[in-house]
Amino acid sequence: MDERVREHAEVLVDWSARIEPGDDVVVDVAEGAHDLAVAVAERLGEVGANATVTYGSEEVRRAYLRANEGEFDAGATDLALFESADAYLRLGGGRNTAAMADVDAETRQAYRSARTEVREARMDTDWVSTVHPTRSLAQRAGMSYAAYREFVYEAVLRDWERLAETMSEVQTLLDDGETVRILKGRDDQPRTDVRMSIAGRTAINSAASVAYDSHNLPSGEVFTAPYDTDGQVFFDVPMTVDGRRVEGVRLVFEGGEVVEFDAERGEDALEAVLETDPGASRLGELGVGMNRRIDRFTDNILFDEKMGDTVHLALGRAYDATLPDNESGNESAVHVDLITDLSEASRIEIDGDVIQRNGTFRFEEGFEP
Amino acid sequence: MDERVREHAEVLVDWSARIEPGDDVVVDVAEGAHDLAVAVAERLGEVGANATVTYGSEEVRRAYLRANEGEFDAGATDLALFESADAYLRLGGGRNTAAMADVDAETRQAYRSARTEVREARMDTDWVSTVHPTRSLAQRAGMSYAAYREFVYEAVLRDWERLAETMSEVQTLLDDGETVRILKGRDDQPRTDVRMSIAGRTAINSAASVAYDSHNLPSGEVFTAPYDTDGQVFFDVPMTVDGRRVEGVRLVFEGGEVVEFDAERGEDALEAVLETDPGASRLGELGVGMNRRIDRFTDNILFDEKMGDTVHLALGRAYDATLPDNESGNESAVHVDLITDLSEASRIEIDGDVIQRNGTFRFEEGFEP
Repeated sequence: MDERVREHAEVLVDWSARIEPGDDVVVDVAEGAHDLAVAVAERLGEVGANATVTYGSEEVRRAYLRANEGEFDAGATDLALFESADAYLRLGGGRNTAAMADVDAETRQAYRSARTEVREARMDTDWVSTVHPTRSLAQRAGMSYAAYREFVYEAVLRDWERLAETMSEVQTLLDDGETVRILKGRDDQPRTDVRMSIAGRTAINSAASVAYDSHNLPSGEVFTAPYDTDGQVFFDVPMTVDGRRVEGVRLVFEGGEVVEFDAERGEDALEAVLETDPGASRLGELGVGMNRRIDRFTDNILFDEKMGDTVHLALGRAYDATLPDNESGNESAVHVDLITDLSEASRIEIDGDVIQRNGTFRFEEGFEP
Repeated sequence: MDERVREHAEVLVDWSARIEPGDDVVVDVAEGAHDLAVAVAERLGEVGANATVTYGSEEVRRAYLRANEGEFDAGATDLALFESADAYLRLGGGRNTAAMADVDAETRQAYRSARTEVREARMDTDWVSTVHPTRSLAQRAGMSYAAYREFVYEAVLRDWERLAETMSEVQTLLDDGETVRILKGRDDQPRTDVRMSIAGRTAINSAASVAYDSHNLPSGEVFTAPYDTDGQVFFDVPMTVDGRRVEGVRLVFEGGEVVEFDAERGEDALEAVLETDPGASRLGELGVGMNRRIDRFTDNILFDEKMGDTVHLALGRAYDATLPDNESGNESAVHVDLITDLSEASRIEIDGDVIQRNGTFRFEEGFEP
């Protein structure tokens, strides 16, 4: 076994999920993630945790969803499983990213709705989502298998504690700030010029560990929950939404709400997202990507939104950790991240001060105020 | 997909496990059983049952067991899973029957002991064990993959209701009888001549369905729980016990207990079984194989013990269904089946009447009294 698979498992179990002896851990294994599952089982055994291993096969799920004619049910076993679990480790990495392409949207939505309680129980655990590099994901990224493995391990196997320190500077700026403005394009006619309030919200230093309220491996972003958004944003990073390619999205906000939108490609997929529920046309997240080891877009949101020199805005649900206790933020059944590359002709301002210009933060060398 | 995979799933879900709408079903998928899992998920979807799919990977289990240095724990998640389940479908069929060969016996035993409660919860469900034909199982059987698939589907896809009717004749004979005698070999010097009492015990018509107290697919045997065994048995069918080849076992019983034993091969593996606990040197089962579609030994107990014209005796644990209510039968941590071919030079007697000679039952054509 590639030694990096073992290191990946150690980062996941030790740094990300903070598994301790006696913890009850559910490990979900995608069709192509067998090798990582073996390494994770080994690490859980060394730690002395208990493990239930589930099979996260999209082909199995597709067959089940397409065959079911009636109403979906939450399922007593899944609920019992997550309610009794301390942690949930999702090992993604399938054999075909289009495996569920012929499951219609209503069926997915009905299944999702029926399982709200299961999902909540799962998110009440110390959950972490990661992926094992597979040929299918390499294909989606437009990369060779060898190069894609290299890319994944560069992003995953890093000194997270050190990155967390760097990210804490941005966290402090966001925590102390009240208004964020993002600009991109020619100064006289920017394609992106948007302002949003973040006063009273908590910024999360997402350092790939539940100890940082972070549930993705890799991670490497600082995020918060904005509101009262006004202005226009152009998202220049292509992405896949519910299996559909979406490119060149433009959103216009007034008073926190999307009042105008278009897309160069996949506009109807975007429209379907916006029409899900009232919360789907408001923002749930502003995230600043800071993992510079992610140096290209691979059409996988787990990586894309953490890329250095980017920001992303998510339509829909806000994360509880970003909100004051007992305050609920934007609520929605969806959470769709849209990304803008800020590596050039751009800046981020907080309360009028430039904190990043052309991808360089003000605490970094080469920053031009 | 081979249409027979779909038929296998239907027999499993409908005939064997009797799954109904809303049932909570745990499906365990061995590494090589993906295609059967897809078909089973489809059938469960059609029926409207809920499913939790677990990954029964021996490589994952091996890694976990070998890494664990300390004591094993039952694990809250597995227990919660089976306590909330109505049924458990185990889809065997790995990629290497020796996958766990380097996990030592003490570790296996410690893990097994720690999980008694989990096992009991699992056996309290409507559980059914089957296998998807894999190249690994074909290899173990000494067969080509194509021929092995043919063999498995011949054994599995049959008219179970009709076989149940035939088997009910043997069930009645065993239920009404008090003493069974099995003989094989030259009349003046039989290698096998053993008597056992079955009075008061219930014979199970194991027709591959929980409705018949039968938990294997394929099945096709009638079994009961004997006691007070006396005499000698020679088991001429080779088998694998805890990963060790065992052949030519001879057991001598007095007053229900093994008092003498030897084996032409693997005698120490046999000895280890007998020394497990006091119940391991007493019989827990007498089974009569009646699935004539199983026409050869394939070194897989799921099939071998059901082969037509054979009997098997199991050292160790008796099944509750064979015992009167509130009576406990032979107890042991093991249940090891040993098989004798009765197709020639042999007979089975019940209370002195010959009920089978050279593999032909007295209710069948060609029977010689």
